[in-house]
Amino acid sequence: MLEVSQRGRAMPVSPYRKLTPFADEAKQRGVHVYHLNIGQPDIETPPAMMAAVQQADIRVLEYSPSAGSVSYRQKLAAYYQRAGMNVVPDDILVTSGGSEAIFFAMMSCLNPGDEVIVPEPFYGAYTAFAIATTVNIVPVTSTMDEGFALPAISEFEKVITPRTKAILICNPNNPTGYVYSRTELEQMRDLCLRHNLYFLSDEAYREFCYDSEYFSAFQLEGAEEHVVLLDTVSKRYSACGARLGALVTKNKQLQATALKFAQMRVSAPGLSQLMGEAATELPDSYFEHTKAEYTARRDLMVSRLRAMPGVYCPVPGGAFYVVARLPVDDSEKFCQWLLEAFTYDNQTVMLSPGAGFYATPGLGNDEVRLAYVLNLDDLNVALTCLEKGLAAYPGRKHAPEETAVLQEAKA
Amino acid sequence: MLEVSQRGRAMPVSPYRKLTPFADEAKQRGVHVYHLNIGQPDIETPPAMMAAVQQADIRVLEYSPSAGSVSYRQKLAAYYQRAGMNVVPDDILVTSGGSEAIFFAMMSCLNPGDEVIVPEPFYGAYTAFAIATTVNIVPVTSTMDEGFALPAISEFEKVITPRTKAILICNPNNPTGYVYSRTELEQMRDLCLRHNLYFLSDEAYREFCYDSEYFSAFQLEGAEEHVVLLDTVSKRYSACGARLGALVTKNKQLQATALKFAQMRVSAPGLSQLMGEAATELPDSYFEHTKAEYTARRDLMVSRLRAMPGVYCPVPGGAFYVVARLPVDDSEKFCQWLLEAFTYDNQTVMLSPGAGFYATPGLGNDEVRLAYVLNLDDLNVALTCLEKGLAAYPGRKHAPEETAVLQEAKA
Repeated sequence: MLEVSQRGRAMPVSPYRKLTPFADEAKQRGVHVYHLNIGQPDIETPPAMMAAVQQADIRVLEYSPSAGSVSYRQKLAAYYQRAGMNVVPDDILVTSGGSEAIFFAMMSCLNPGDEVIVPEPFYGAYTAFAIATTVNIVPVTSTMDEGFALPAISEFEKVITPRTKAILICNPNNPTGYVYSRTELEQMRDLCLRHNLYFLSDEAYREFCYDSEYFSAFQLEGAEEHVVLLDTVSKRYSACGARLGALVTKNKQLQATALKFAQMRVSAPGLSQLMGEAATELPDSYFEHTKAEYTARRDLMVSRLRAMPGVYCPVPGGAFYVVARLPVDDSEKFCQWLLEAFTYDNQTVMLSPGAGFYATPGLGNDEVRLAYVLNLDDLNVALTCLEKGLAAYPGRKHAPEETAVLQEAKA
Repeated sequence: MLEVSQRGRAMPVSPYRKLTPFADEAKQRGVHVYHLNIGQPDIETPPAMMAAVQQADIRVLEYSPSAGSVSYRQKLAAYYQRAGMNVVPDDILVTSGGSEAIFFAMMSCLNPGDEVIVPEPFYGAYTAFAIATTVNIVPVTSTMDEGFALPAISEFEKVITPRTKAILICNPNNPTGYVYSRTELEQMRDLCLRHNLYFLSDEAYREFCYDSEYFSAFQLEGAEEHVVLLDTVSKRYSACGARLGALVTKNKQLQATALKFAQMRVSAPGLSQLMGEAATELPDSYFEHTKAEYTARRDLMVSRLRAMPGVYCPVPGGAFYVVARLPVDDSEKFCQWLLEAFTYDNQTVMLSPGAGFYATPGLGNDEVRLAYVLNLDDLNVALTCLEKGLAAYPGRKHAPEETAVLQEAKA
């Protein structure tokens, strides 16, 4: 009998997709499912990006250079420069999505068995990349009660071992929406300098920062050899299907190493690089519009969630996610129940259970991640489904005051 | 001091790109360089494939399903069916290029330290994928004198150990152009059944088979659980920049495992899948035309190479490569010399040194790989450059009869 590999068995099924069969069954029953479970925005991909491909005159769709096309790297560097980041084209390796940038960074920075510290909750795919690259993720826990701010640096210091090679953050954060402050970034930089660690900064949501000016790890002074920016056009331009990302670092040895992994797969998608070029030429007003839209969605989501009895969430400053605490026995059970057993006006809502974003067992069991990727009307209906669902859920936990009332009634 | 990872240091610089700086310098001196070193065809990408993207009405370029879009998988299965292969959509995982299919297969089938047997010479990137996945390639040597036919099965048996998990072939072969016969494939199948091995078959060049009917490993009877087809549209449709491939297997456990790696990177490029769909609808005449063109190029290349004193090559039955033995001291030195120190009418030619295709040290040092990816006129001039270069090269080895004449002259 043939067996699949140990690492293949160890790979997690995507937490985003675990509940998909239940959503599919609901749809087959004719139920409309609102997807707040995945970061797939409904925002239009900028027509200028599509036009760059659709109007291109291409006789032979050739391999591009392994590091990415020269013209895209030049324009992308200019985009970073405008954002206050000192990036030159040679600092950029163009990748197949942000995913490949994460993969190349882990492969290039860490040996098998090495450790990378990641504040939890974190993007679930990091776990998959760690297994694929035989690297260990060591979590430090950020808490909802502190708005998912950076855990104290002493918490990082506690878990540092001789095998620790890197810190990995997502900023603005997926799933919490937290935006790390300049002070927090400087604390992490100092830690990386003190312990000789790479500082991997996943900035997929850079342009979605609602209450403050964004400050990138790439703007930190004195950490040029340490900082590795992991980036993608997926969310920024609602172009998830383009699979176009970048690994950006001033560390020349690391860049040369990552390039060897890039040569292995020859090149990133060619048409997407044309889209990427066009994206760098979008006017600033593009981001103003999308930011205004996402801000309105965030505000709606937060105010509606907070108005639901027993529900709490911090106000996220960026990205397009909210982590909320729900008054339920188990959020995964609740999410499945919403799809299997509940409808409101023949509609329901799909959420991501919180546990999939934590490495520490037992955490996140009363939390969910909600993505505000739907327009305000749809979002409103989706949140009404959630509200009605919470009220009807058999596994609902009662708030202390409710419990007291119930106990009195029983007595 | 920060260090890059051990595997990063171990990764090879692409053998195709090692000589690139010398080619770039030649170009800067105004020399025209004919590229026979890489498998980048000059054949037009079918306009219907480009039109599929350019005429598509796409509002949001979304993630596609991790396994690939349903419509592409359906049409691709039909393409395989027409080619006599019993493939259904669920057997197909759409990948970012054939490269990712190779990567997923190695990750899913082998544990770190496990061994995969590969007939050498082989596609250089296999070495990179083996290092990235911490798998060991064990070569069995095919020889030019036997036309690079499959080595005797007893040679495979000799190197099988408890760590051997798979055989990997490229058919038609890159770099040799050899097309494995049905009998050879059946021998390998029997070996895989006997020793419980996966049979990984890279069929990037399936449609380029000039002297015989193509027989795929996927057509072998009784090996459904063992065979994993690794495929790509890159060469078949001259669409290398699309980065669209596939991992195809009837082994359900393996397919489910590979899907977990696919979920890690969310999806393959979206626009390329539209191109892939259009490709499956091209008329048979498309392949007739490209085959006729490549056959003419092959015939020209082989006859011209064989007419050069001291040069020998077998007649390749498929793909678009020839491995030739040259009368030179060291083919890497010669290739570099062609770029650095030689011109003919202000032109020169770039070849791939043979050693990069062998795992066994010392082999291939008098061999080169030539890709017949240029039109007949350019190919002719490129081969004239090679002929003149061989005549002028200071490190030329003389054939026995020439040596005899020279010795007589000295005496």
